[in-house]
Amino acid sequence: MSDTGVTVKKSEDFSEWYTEVILKSELADYAPVKGCMIIREDAYAMWEKIQEIFNKKIRATGHRNVYFPMFIPEGFLKKESEHFAGFVPEVAWITQGGDTPLEEKLAVRPTSETIMYATFAKWIRSWRDLPVKINQWCNIVRWETKATKLFLRTREFLWQEGHTAHATSEEAEKEVMDILQEYKDVMESYLAIPVLIGVKSDSEKFAGAHYTTALEAMMPDGKALQMGTSHNLGQNFAHVFDIKFIGEDEKEHYVWQTSWGITTRLIGAVVMVHGDDKGLVLPPKVAPVQVVIVPIPYKGADSTAITAKAKETAAKLKAKNLSVVVDDREEYTPGWKFNQWELKGVPVRIEIGPRDLKQQQVTVARRDTYQKTTVKEDEAADAVEKLLEEIQSNLYNRAKKALDEKITPVQNYSEFADALKEKGGFIKASWCGNPECESKIKDETGATIRVLPFQQESIAANCVYCGQQAKKTVYFARSY
Amino acid sequence: MSDTGVTVKKSEDFSEWYTEVILKSELADYAPVKGCMIIREDAYAMWEKIQEIFNKKIRATGHRNVYFPMFIPEGFLKKESEHFAGFVPEVAWITQGGDTPLEEKLAVRPTSETIMYATFAKWIRSWRDLPVKINQWCNIVRWETKATKLFLRTREFLWQEGHTAHATSEEAEKEVMDILQEYKDVMESYLAIPVLIGVKSDSEKFAGAHYTTALEAMMPDGKALQMGTSHNLGQNFAHVFDIKFIGEDEKEHYVWQTSWGITTRLIGAVVMVHGDDKGLVLPPKVAPVQVVIVPIPYKGADSTAITAKAKETAAKLKAKNLSVVVDDREEYTPGWKFNQWELKGVPVRIEIGPRDLKQQQVTVARRDTYQKTTVKEDEAADAVEKLLEEIQSNLYNRAKKALDEKITPVQNYSEFADALKEKGGFIKASWCGNPECESKIKDETGATIRVLPFQQESIAANCVYCGQQAKKTVYFARSY
Repeated sequence: MSDTGVTVKKSEDFSEWYTEVILKSELADYAPVKGCMIIREDAYAMWEKIQEIFNKKIRATGHRNVYFPMFIPEGFLKKESEHFAGFVPEVAWITQGGDTPLEEKLAVRPTSETIMYATFAKWIRSWRDLPVKINQWCNIVRWETKATKLFLRTREFLWQEGHTAHATSEEAEKEVMDILQEYKDVMESYLAIPVLIGVKSDSEKFAGAHYTTALEAMMPDGKALQMGTSHNLGQNFAHVFDIKFIGEDEKEHYVWQTSWGITTRLIGAVVMVHGDDKGLVLPPKVAPVQVVIVPIPYKGADSTAITAKAKETAAKLKAKNLSVVVDDREEYTPGWKFNQWELKGVPVRIEIGPRDLKQQQVTVARRDTYQKTTVKEDEAADAVEKLLEEIQSNLYNRAKKALDEKITPVQNYSEFADALKEKGGFIKASWCGNPECESKIKDETGATIRVLPFQQESIAANCVYCGQQAKKTVYFARSY
Repeated sequence: MSDTGVTVKKSEDFSEWYTEVILKSELADYAPVKGCMIIREDAYAMWEKIQEIFNKKIRATGHRNVYFPMFIPEGFLKKESEHFAGFVPEVAWITQGGDTPLEEKLAVRPTSETIMYATFAKWIRSWRDLPVKINQWCNIVRWETKATKLFLRTREFLWQEGHTAHATSEEAEKEVMDILQEYKDVMESYLAIPVLIGVKSDSEKFAGAHYTTALEAMMPDGKALQMGTSHNLGQNFAHVFDIKFIGEDEKEHYVWQTSWGITTRLIGAVVMVHGDDKGLVLPPKVAPVQVVIVPIPYKGADSTAITAKAKETAAKLKAKNLSVVVDDREEYTPGWKFNQWELKGVPVRIEIGPRDLKQQQVTVARRDTYQKTTVKEDEAADAVEKLLEEIQSNLYNRAKKALDEKITPVQNYSEFADALKEKGGFIKASWCGNPECESKIKDETGATIRVLPFQQESIAANCVYCGQQAKKTVYFARSY
């Protein structure tokens, strides 16, 4: 394979494969500033698709987008002590504007609760002002000291952060769960990545939250990836920022709040879960290019007619609202193009050669299974549309199977250790609820509680670590 | 008028009126961090419309969106000395990450030429890699020391920045002009704001550019507002960042570059140009809500039937892809609602009362002229659609008339001073081309050269300042 292709096998060196696929497919590049990355055209197009999908969902439920300043005065961050303690170790600080040192240093937002809620206090007066349901798409900075991993851990990343305030606890509770379900749908129906959902343990919850719900996916190397979080903030920030309203009962109440986010790390998850030894494999619903058409002009054949047919086919596919590219560049061979578009993960490739032309057919190759078939010209558009749906389902089903195979229920700590060592993945175990057991398991194995599933089922009577009475069933895993 | 309405007249205190309209219509709010603002729901929705309109234009011409890091190492900014000198006085500096002082301080991007072009040098190898045509929508920081003005001058704002690299000077030149025309269309056809276009004088061009083209609009107080810029960078940055390619001639060449941007200040321009004493007047094509329907339940009348009719009418309008709100809140009176939606600038209000119900009609009020008419129920959707087009045209025509009235051709410096004193606006004058004359005019009158129009016509034989042979016709103005 040429030096433009992937040289590392996914099964042999997963981490190296991941980086190579991203760089060579041109999803992203390292930036000339440490710990940061450049989100390139195809990855940004996927992010725009995610934005479009999620915006549609939240608009339908009355949320609206806004933009708050990126700078947060140190004093604001400090107001909620748990929140401050959680974020301050990784805050980038502005200390100078032009030539002038600032009187109070400014944090570049690691998240926007504090600056938004200081303003909520001003906006919210009466029950008529509730609920407040806003969201922003923006950049976030967390000054990571660990090694950078493209999409998964960079000092700057993109996300959306939703923030709501409600009159009652029940409404806030419902919001947290509604958003969690919308996130699940984005991940499973669009990114084709199955997730486990549930509540975080106290030690893993968002700094300042009442509780955190999360969505966790399993990567092929056996490590879990947190895909998104939806926090019930209770009245914690409302008390700190004095966000009160006069209710219909004419009395003063504190609001109930939620916040929730997903980030560009989702793109990293797509690479890891679906990619193969030839490069990216993109789910059709978020692929920037869904179909590439490669005309194959053999010597002596009429390449004009072939290119015309390619363009005609493209027009039919575009009429179905599909994203199509005709790659008729003369400076590259068909073989080079096949490799290139496979590397870029385009779900369907259509080849049109002299034989296809003669037989009024096109050759259709799917990226997920490499299967090739021929389809009659006039059925091509319908067939490709159907095939894209099949690929979308197949990717999800494959990933679901892989996830299911990586969930191991265990009865005791010896089984726990074995499972983790053998294949990693999620270890389903019973837990007494004591943070000490959780902490010791983390120290000894590197695995943390990823979620306490909403649907609890009994795995064992006793805690997998201390042997005391078990109270919860939880999923442990090593994670990114 | 209640305390929620606008209390200042546009003609009496323009600046105060501007701020009050923005705050009370809830387009934006001051942020709890100095010099920054909060872009609220309706303003952000307008920004999203602008994004949608402009993305469509640039995608059609092969540009793609990306995202580069916000942090720029000081050394990068310094590479192009003119660029550095131009931006360094207003750079916000990150000097600390977590508890650790940074080895090299990082600029928060005041613009992204340097970080992008350092990467272009890596990406571009051969003519096959050209043109590069990318764009990003992001936040920008310029540490202004002057007083903040909502949308027009804040330390952080949102913009798009397009950056391209081409094989030839001609291609770059064409790109600069194509984008300028696309900007003009965004401003005139969508925001209903007429602009003058042309080239900036050397003293007003972008720091590091070969030349800058710009679009200038006239505000009602006689001051010009720069609405957007499209720069021809020549090979200036290409030499500094060593961006070379092997041409089809197999020789090495430097690329030719352009960059261009529009910002959230466009929203401020919409407020200034179209607003009136009752608040915002939004052009239908960018209004977040195009039509509001207010049911008017009189005592004794059947309010259920009226509300049902309102919803039925809304459905018909939505079927035409219009953005409609039915304001059936019971806690507010119709009069209060009229004021509120006028304040928010909604182009068309539909009232449905008992009389309308009885006569199978609706009452339609337009925001721009306050004219009210009745329309037969079954013609309402078509009539409103047509009316929105009329309002869009009317706003543009009104603004065009106002612009034309504020252009004064002058023969000499005494006329220049009089015109500027009497009504401000654009002063069309002849200029010898000497930066000294330009600089002295600025010192003495506060007016700068806004643009040298592409279509040059002779105003006078001699420079308006020094009386020497004139070389150029230019537009002077005081500006924001």
